[in-house]
Amino acid sequence: MPATRRPIDRFYSVIPAGGVGSRLWPLSRADAPKFLHDLTGSGQTLLRDTWDRLVPVSGEQRIMVVTGRAHRAAVEKQLPELADRNVVLESEGRDSTAAICLAAAILERREPGVIIGSFAADHVIPDTELFAEAVSEAALAADAGYIVTIGIRPTEPAIGFGYIQASAALAIEGAPSALTVEKFVEKPTLVVAKKYLESGEFLWNAGMFIARADRLLEELGRSEPALLAGIQELAAAWDTPERGAVVDRVWPNLKKIAIDYSVAEPAARAGALAVIPGRFRWDDIGDFASVRKMQSGGRASDLVILGEDARILSDASSGIVVSQSKRVISLIGVKNIVVVDTPDALLVTTTANAQRVKSVVDALKLSGGDDVL
Amino acid sequence: MPATRRPIDRFYSVIPAGGVGSRLWPLSRADAPKFLHDLTGSGQTLLRDTWDRLVPVSGEQRIMVVTGRAHRAAVEKQLPELADRNVVLESEGRDSTAAICLAAAILERREPGVIIGSFAADHVIPDTELFAEAVSEAALAADAGYIVTIGIRPTEPAIGFGYIQASAALAIEGAPSALTVEKFVEKPTLVVAKKYLESGEFLWNAGMFIARADRLLEELGRSEPALLAGIQELAAAWDTPERGAVVDRVWPNLKKIAIDYSVAEPAARAGALAVIPGRFRWDDIGDFASVRKMQSGGRASDLVILGEDARILSDASSGIVVSQSKRVISLIGVKNIVVVDTPDALLVTTTANAQRVKSVVDALKLSGGDDVL
Repeated sequence: MPATRRPIDRFYSVIPAGGVGSRLWPLSRADAPKFLHDLTGSGQTLLRDTWDRLVPVSGEQRIMVVTGRAHRAAVEKQLPELADRNVVLESEGRDSTAAICLAAAILERREPGVIIGSFAADHVIPDTELFAEAVSEAALAADAGYIVTIGIRPTEPAIGFGYIQASAALAIEGAPSALTVEKFVEKPTLVVAKKYLESGEFLWNAGMFIARADRLLEELGRSEPALLAGIQELAAAWDTPERGAVVDRVWPNLKKIAIDYSVAEPAARAGALAVIPGRFRWDDIGDFASVRKMQSGGRASDLVILGEDARILSDASSGIVVSQSKRVISLIGVKNIVVVDTPDALLVTTTANAQRVKSVVDALKLSGGDDVL
Repeated sequence: MPATRRPIDRFYSVIPAGGVGSRLWPLSRADAPKFLHDLTGSGQTLLRDTWDRLVPVSGEQRIMVVTGRAHRAAVEKQLPELADRNVVLESEGRDSTAAICLAAAILERREPGVIIGSFAADHVIPDTELFAEAVSEAALAADAGYIVTIGIRPTEPAIGFGYIQASAALAIEGAPSALTVEKFVEKPTLVVAKKYLESGEFLWNAGMFIARADRLLEELGRSEPALLAGIQELAAAWDTPERGAVVDRVWPNLKKIAIDYSVAEPAARAGALAVIPGRFRWDDIGDFASVRKMQSGGRASDLVILGEDARILSDASSGIVVSQSKRVISLIGVKNIVVVDTPDALLVTTTANAQRVKSVVDALKLSGGDDVL
């Protein structure tokens, strides 16, 4: 049993809670995004799981949540301990750079020298202690001036993730695992992913970034000076009566860009990006095949059923049914089936096609199906 | 163009409208049986199609409907021309012998010497004129004293139907197609069905029976005298103030037996059964694979969609979706799929498994799922 962990010095966790999780439609959608669902069977939402994982790392007074105005009530219900000053509300999504760097800029003004770590609201990390150890190392590397990411050791040649190529060890005191990052690479083809896996040099990019706030903003200023200027203007007004007016004027005009492109890739090219290989299990449960796998404990042959009131009659030996009603759902002679039954939308597919669910969402956007998105 | 057909002399049509159509669950069910659905795309229910097909044969004043009390309003809405005296209401289903022979007994008392023809409420026969010709021949053979059935020429080695083995021609004036029936056979295996098809001697049993009412009751009395006695008691009270009391006392105790077993098989053994080979197309659309086939005009590759308000997003090139709501239904990467979406029950299966739907209904009966049956 590990001793109770002391929060990391000068550390602040940031949880950008914004993504809908389109590949989990129609369960995940604008008014019920992925982070507000229990997809692991833990009995609580992914957001709450994330919070509970971060409390030992930073302390509950030092977790900032960046989320949409529409989700404020749901987030506060999930996280009653969340202090008002640690909530950043977005009037509209402007991608991860705006969300994370605004949090960094606000925190740097409040507490110069702060180190922030940004962690998705909807990922699954069962090994809390190993996670905390990795963040501790990352914070030390960040304090030394690096932009730090935590990479995940690949267990299969996944094509749904970006990869990070690591190389030489960095000699940072207290962060013995830290490696230099050679490059960030986009989601690969299966052939390329297999090579990555064999090489042993590549880690999955799980979107975790740890940095001193000042260093993060400095790197952003190199690649996106206009975006940094807007963020600094917002941060300067944040804890003043001007906040509302400045947000209304500035926020909608911020460039939409992922932090991978605005900060991490340029930092990697400049030799300023470090990676800590995480030794913990991790899953982004990006689609219903992942949900099934997680809920079945890895068994291939079970039909997983989500939904407290589900009434399922099935001879299916594999697949997943998500039921949001008391309707009887009957499955006959179907294999590896995915059925997601919500009040206004029904999805029928197979685990092999689970990644393609996003295409339905795209089609609905184009065809006036916003009412079910 | 055929001339307007004159109704057949002394002929009465009987429509037993009772079967739920379990293999079409959850579309067909106790309170919305198969005959109250439009499964052909004709724009009207199968019951109304049946009525329209029988009017030229017997005239609209000479069609009797035997149905459950629960369906009275729906039947009368479908058939506003149906006279009150031509409605026989069952307090509970007692199988086809009770339904058809009670109609025969009532009609024989009202009009001695009447010939009745019994035709299912939920079969599809597009060739109305060829059907009427077959019934005309059958009525003449019936008038000569035979119990007559109209058999369907098999187009495939179906295992879902019973078969009729025909042999020598009967020399009946006006009924040149009439053949002696060798035997009735139950639903065969595929191997046996193929032999039947090759032999050319076998016809499908479509449950159509034509007979003089007195002869029908005479044959019933030979095999099931107690059942006949109950039916005669009911018929004697039918057009009197005693009807209600006698129905309450007698009807629930009538033996449940299909007319195939109580009349047709014994008559076949006694050489009293004749068959007219129908030259018309016929389908009992017994499952969703049949519905799909019928609605697609025989094309194998189309996704058939039933439901006026259906909102379907699909890359499926084959199968059938039945939608009773405005819910979005999305199908990704599924083939030969069957999705039936009703307010309280959802079925997901494949066309190859469509016959197995009845097993779900059986399971629901055993497991307290009556609310959706």
